[in-house]
Amino acid sequence: MIDIPTFENIQKAAERIRPFANRTPVLTSRTLDERFGTKLFFKCENFQKVGAFKFRGACNAVFSLSEQEARRGVATHSSGNHAAALALAAKFRGIPSYVVMPENSPKIKINAVEGYGAKITFCKPTLEAREIVLQEVIGKTGAAFIHPYDNFHVIAGQGTTALELLEEIPDLDIILASVSGGGLLGGTAVAAKGISPHIQIIGAEPEGADDAYRSLQTGKLIPQTNPRTIADGLRTQLSERTFHILQKHNCSVVTVSEAGIVAGMRLIWERMKIIIEPSASVTIGALLEKRIDTAGKRVGVILSGGNVDLEQLPW
Amino acid sequence: MIDIPTFENIQKAAERIRPFANRTPVLTSRTLDERFGTKLFFKCENFQKVGAFKFRGACNAVFSLSEQEARRGVATHSSGNHAAALALAAKFRGIPSYVVMPENSPKIKINAVEGYGAKITFCKPTLEAREIVLQEVIGKTGAAFIHPYDNFHVIAGQGTTALELLEEIPDLDIILASVSGGGLLGGTAVAAKGISPHIQIIGAEPEGADDAYRSLQTGKLIPQTNPRTIADGLRTQLSERTFHILQKHNCSVVTVSEAGIVAGMRLIWERMKIIIEPSASVTIGALLEKRIDTAGKRVGVILSGGNVDLEQLPW
Repeated sequence: MIDIPTFENIQKAAERIRPFANRTPVLTSRTLDERFGTKLFFKCENFQKVGAFKFRGACNAVFSLSEQEARRGVATHSSGNHAAALALAAKFRGIPSYVVMPENSPKIKINAVEGYGAKITFCKPTLEAREIVLQEVIGKTGAAFIHPYDNFHVIAGQGTTALELLEEIPDLDIILASVSGGGLLGGTAVAAKGISPHIQIIGAEPEGADDAYRSLQTGKLIPQTNPRTIADGLRTQLSERTFHILQKHNCSVVTVSEAGIVAGMRLIWERMKIIIEPSASVTIGALLEKRIDTAGKRVGVILSGGNVDLEQLPW
Repeated sequence: MIDIPTFENIQKAAERIRPFANRTPVLTSRTLDERFGTKLFFKCENFQKVGAFKFRGACNAVFSLSEQEARRGVATHSSGNHAAALALAAKFRGIPSYVVMPENSPKIKINAVEGYGAKITFCKPTLEAREIVLQEVIGKTGAAFIHPYDNFHVIAGQGTTALELLEEIPDLDIILASVSGGGLLGGTAVAAKGISPHIQIIGAEPEGADDAYRSLQTGKLIPQTNPRTIADGLRTQLSERTFHILQKHNCSVVTVSEAGIVAGMRLIWERMKIIIEPSASVTIGALLEKRIDTAGKRVGVILSGGNVDLEQLPW
């Protein structure tokens, strides 16, 4: 029996994170509507705390801990947005956070996580080393492990994005979000179907990291080996839990080329004057490559984050 | 006697452009407030039509023409945001627009202006050639010349930015905006002083194009010769009309280094995840270089535009 959040869990998560998370704006663009022949509503999680939706899930998980659990702190292994999000959420609660990072992580990411007050332990850059070192850290500290997506409270927290979007724009036909571990897409599905049972939930995934697409096609959880994509937030894989949610709610997944991800990123930067990261622009790539039939539909697009190394732009 | 707009002219301009211009959002950032020890309210004209406040002035000028005048169209010489703004405003009114551009203008700018439906006439890249060719175009077409800033209706239109900002955030101590020709700063001064007589209006200007600073210092209109700045929108000079407005309303001007302009741009991109151009980030540079005493003050910052060539970033 896999424990997955309900619509009510997401409502409670929204209450829980309200004092800490940003209620991000929903932007529109007449130019892009004309270009795609549809009505697009962009939920801007690039404006979320730490620059990504990840803060919602981490914050919900941190504030769902009992006093006793919380006192020992939280831990995770991640080099990305989840680590920064967990560190900031822990800071808000006034508890320690421990992050295991590969020793070859970019300085910019190390600084960000440190800046939010996490204690970093470096490990060799392999999955195995990461897990062993994490176990050591947890053994020593008694910290609670907060998985980036395979976690009940994290998924419930991510679902608050769609909750806010549908509160503001109730009559959407489709919600489009990127998919990697499935925390965002799963939370989105639970939230959105709880409000609009007939809404379509579509995940956009890089062609070079298409485990979710293949898993849903075959009905069997297929691991992601050797992901190849510029979208560094989309290189991981579904868990049993998130796969189960996506199946249960009839989510579909479309794949997008690397060129589409870059073109989508550039289109949003140039036309909307906002900064989104490749892991967010995979949704725009799906529209550009006509992977979804959106004609005449009202489409919510979750722009998941805006953390980009400005020294390393893909054009 | 120089004809300058009153507060009532700006209110009328706001009515006139309302169906066409975006009411741009006012964003805040706790991170930046902490960093600068002040409360900042960013009026985001990078989200305006054509990506810059210039649309307000052009739109007000185009819709202030009589039917008879309008029929013959509008003309200007510009390679920047004003040309695109005028072309789009003319398109909204259904009249022709004529733009004289230097033959060495970047393809990206030519495409933008053409995309909005303007007829382009190319000229040699000198001020003299530009004015001669403009006179020829006007002679042939009878189009009304809409100057980028030395124009009553353009200034009134630019003033609607501050009007909206103060409607939303009434109790500002300072409004900070970039200054070049003085249309934006002048309109801002008239609008803001009409609402809050004690508000401070401060212009930020590149050190390498500091004619407004020197003109206000000496009390004498000093032309801008050989401007040297990355902020391509800030290379021109005050006119008698805009100089008069700045003097009348006690505006002050501070200068900012090129490094400050670039650092300000990068700070906004990284922290706020929005795209602003160097001509906008000169305001942030003024804060970074502590050219203004903002301690404990509530400061409105007009982010004037977001049109950046993503192939040519200054870092």
